[in-house]
Amino acid sequence: MSINPLEQLRQQLAEFAAARDWDQFHSPKNLSMALIAEVAELIEHFQWLTPEQSEQLSPEQRQAVSYELADIFIYLIRLSDKLNVDLMTVTQEKIKINDSRYPIALAKGSARRATEYLEQKQDVKS
Amino acid sequence: MSINPLEQLRQQLAEFAAARDWDQFHSPKNLSMALIAEVAELIEHFQWLTPEQSEQLSPEQRQAVSYELADIFIYLIRLSDKLNVDLMTVTQEKIKINDSRYPIALAKGSARRATEYLEQKQDVKS
Amino acid sequence: MSINPLEQLRQQLAEFAAARDWDQFHSPKNLSMALIAEVAELIEHFQWLTPEQSEQLSPEQRQAVSYELADIFIYLIRLSDKLNVDLMTVTQEKIKINDSRYPIALAKGSARRATEYLEQKQDVKS
Amino acid sequence: MSINPLEQLRQQLAEFAAARDWDQFHSPKNLSMALIAEVAELIEHFQWLTPEQSEQLSPEQRQAVSYELADIFIYLIRLSDKLNVDLMTVTQEKIKINDSRYPIALAKGSARRATEYLEQKQDVKS
Repeated sequence: MSINPLEQLRQQLAEFAAARDWDQFHSPKNLSMALIAEVAELIEHFQWLTPEQSEQLSPEQRQAVSYELADIFIYLIRLSDKLNVDLMTVTQEKIKINDSRYPIALAKGSARRATEYLEQKQDVKS
Repeated sequence: MSINPLEQLRQQLAEFAAARDWDQFHSPKNLSMALIAEVAELIEHFQWLTPEQSEQLSPEQRQAVSYELADIFIYLIRLSDKLNVDLMTVTQEKIKINDSRYPIALAKGSARRATEYLEQKQDVKS
Repeated sequence: MSINPLEQLRQQLAEFAAARDWDQFHSPKNLSMALIAEVAELIEHFQWLTPEQSEQLSPEQRQAVSYELADIFIYLIRLSDKLNVDLMTVTQEKIKINDSRYPIALAKGSARRATEYLEQKQDVKS
Repeated sequence: MSINPLEQLRQQLAEFAAARDWDQFHSPKNLSMALIAEVAELIEHFQWLTPEQSEQLSPEQRQAVSYELADIFIYLIRLSDKLNVDLMTVTQEKIKINDSRYPIALAKGSARRATEYLEQKQDVKS
């Protein structure tokens, strides 16, 4: 009988925080700040690189970047947990919405198109 | 024979991008920007709320927030894929690092302690 | 004959970058990434504090925070310069727009009102 | 007798907030969140552009971007005000620190050098 790996991770991180009595600090507001701070550490790795250079990281850079991705994932799981959101379920819902919002025929292969669609997304965002 | 749900999501999003010819825009640099922009949309929901209010969202707010979490997850999976990083594996590695970095006996129940540990984390970060 | 202090700062920072041959890295795209990374360093100072605690920083915290504000200002001036934007002029224009967007009679004293107005701002943003 | 334009802007924005009874929401914590959300709106303009494209915005894009810069400036001034920080003074102090941290002879013209210096900056940051 296997447990969903996301559910397993959620439990693991909840126990990690509980053992340290950190739930008092983990309001959604605070966790959203911690989350964006972690993403910014990722940004720092890429800010002076060209897009092409960002695709060819050294092993050391790639290792460092992968730990930033892990930190982001940790706070994302934690935040979803505190909000009682089933991350995989809402993601599948959101992919369906994106699918109708960016129809293949229209969105295909144009940066400009992609940008326009993003602006459109702004307008309808909840 | 079941497929790991994260691996399944990775494939699904890779196909979504490929069908729209978006890989040309999806360098790690660009994806890191798209990722932080999504986290900022989450931040906007919480910026004027107290930490306590952020724990008691209305059903409409919670729905909107959950879609932001989905967008963050989508770009995180996409970015990990483009960097050939196995997100679950590095996350388990990172949790072990965090466990030794924030020992329960020292980190327990103090915001100040938590902050100091975060600063320490800055110093040793790769 | 006095020089505008913002114009003086712009020149000073342009010379700082030119002396280091950094203009090649200072595209608006790259500078926007550097800017958000600096703001995230500010966020880290506040993420585990309550709103009230963030108003009562220790002298050491306040000093550290003030240097983050400086870094943000530096990149903001630099980015405006590279885009040939007169920051003070567009700010006065934007304040006029905000003034009509958030009329005193309607916006006064309600977080909810403030939030609604922010959402309205999303819809009309250019 | 001229007033410093930054001081004038500070007063103007303080009155804008006071007239709307918004000081209750403008804790440094909350303002740091509003600030990063504005920077993210800037990021969205650049995320799918190449660094070169970000230097050649259309008049419409440049106008939109300039209002984002204004919003960032507004929150930066507001935050400095709430923290009683004299933004111009700390910025001049910070430039002196940066000057000794990135000596021209060493930092000149190398992205790699720039990155290393940034990492060094991480280590010593307060």
